[in-house]
Amino acid sequence: MVRWEPDSRGRLEEAALALFSELGFDNTTVAAIAERAGVTERTFFRHFADKREVLFGGGTALQDAILAGVREAVPARSPLEAVVAGFDAAGELLEGRRRFALARSAIIAANPSLQERELIKLASIAAAVADGLRERGVSDPDAGLIAELGVGAFRVAFGQWVATMDAPPLRTLIDEAFERMAALAR
Amino acid sequence: MVRWEPDSRGRLEEAALALFSELGFDNTTVAAIAERAGVTERTFFRHFADKREVLFGGGTALQDAILAGVREAVPARSPLEAVVAGFDAAGELLEGRRRFALARSAIIAANPSLQERELIKLASIAAAVADGLRERGVSDPDAGLIAELGVGAFRVAFGQWVATMDAPPLRTLIDEAFERMAALAR
Repeated sequence: MVRWEPDSRGRLEEAALALFSELGFDNTTVAAIAERAGVTERTFFRHFADKREVLFGGGTALQDAILAGVREAVPARSPLEAVVAGFDAAGELLEGRRRFALARSAIIAANPSLQERELIKLASIAAAVADGLRERGVSDPDAGLIAELGVGAFRVAFGQWVATMDAPPLRTLIDEAFERMAALAR
Repeated sequence: MVRWEPDSRGRLEEAALALFSELGFDNTTVAAIAERAGVTERTFFRHFADKREVLFGGGTALQDAILAGVREAVPARSPLEAVVAGFDAAGELLEGRRRFALARSAIIAANPSLQERELIKLASIAAAVADGLRERGVSDPDAGLIAELGVGAFRVAFGQWVATMDAPPLRTLIDEAFERMAALAR
């Protein structure tokens, strides 16, 4: 029996975030998420491989957006400008998801193994950005240094963005973080 | 029966590194490490809590050295200079251990869960450096940004240092990475 389930993905996300914060991530089952969302477990697994993917499923799209921004910056742009363009693209991508991002950050902060996963995601973004810079002809160690600088600025800006619903747009925070980083590096 | 065991810690490290690279980290037992080193398992556990600590036991001393460098930099030093002083102290601390560091890096590169542990260690260093800067009166987001910049420069310099036994001293690489980071951030 196939039921029509309007926005079942959105409802599953909402249900998962609510349960993760009520019960803790480890104590939440897929069955409970599906029940809260009013769908079957089978529907859950059509959208997510497991409950962790509710939190981390967007990571690939984020990394792709950043890498595309780095690659597609016109050749006249400096390596740093290309990296800023990449993270700006990430800012645009995430902007509509601030409420999700805030709830997600609180859940991750409460769970060391999710924090590890988040660190791995950022390390993977840094490696991808460094690769993107090498494709642009940037040599080492510069490619690695600019990638580290970019991920560092992004991490701080992201932290400010998820600290409160009233924070400025992520892209603004990212641009400010890069400018401030440049001033501080002098 | 207590035996006199000259440098049993050094022999245990040597034996562990050899076995980790021969058999893989996961397939190496404490019993095998102790046997290769010619000591008892009990001696192993006098030096290390578990086999992972052979690789990560130095992390606390490293973080302490960095933080002490940041804290003890004279007040006239800029926040960035204090952070450079902290990582320079790390460079001095590690310099005599390059052979260990090279073998250790190869073992970590071959094992995802050890890579996660290394990421956690660096994130913990970044948090400690940011705290050290706040103690010096540096406000946010600057404290976080300079800490990220510092860990980024250190990560790249450390990677160059463990790439080959012929690389320049770690402290030199760290200083160069900070200088290059400043040039690139402009």
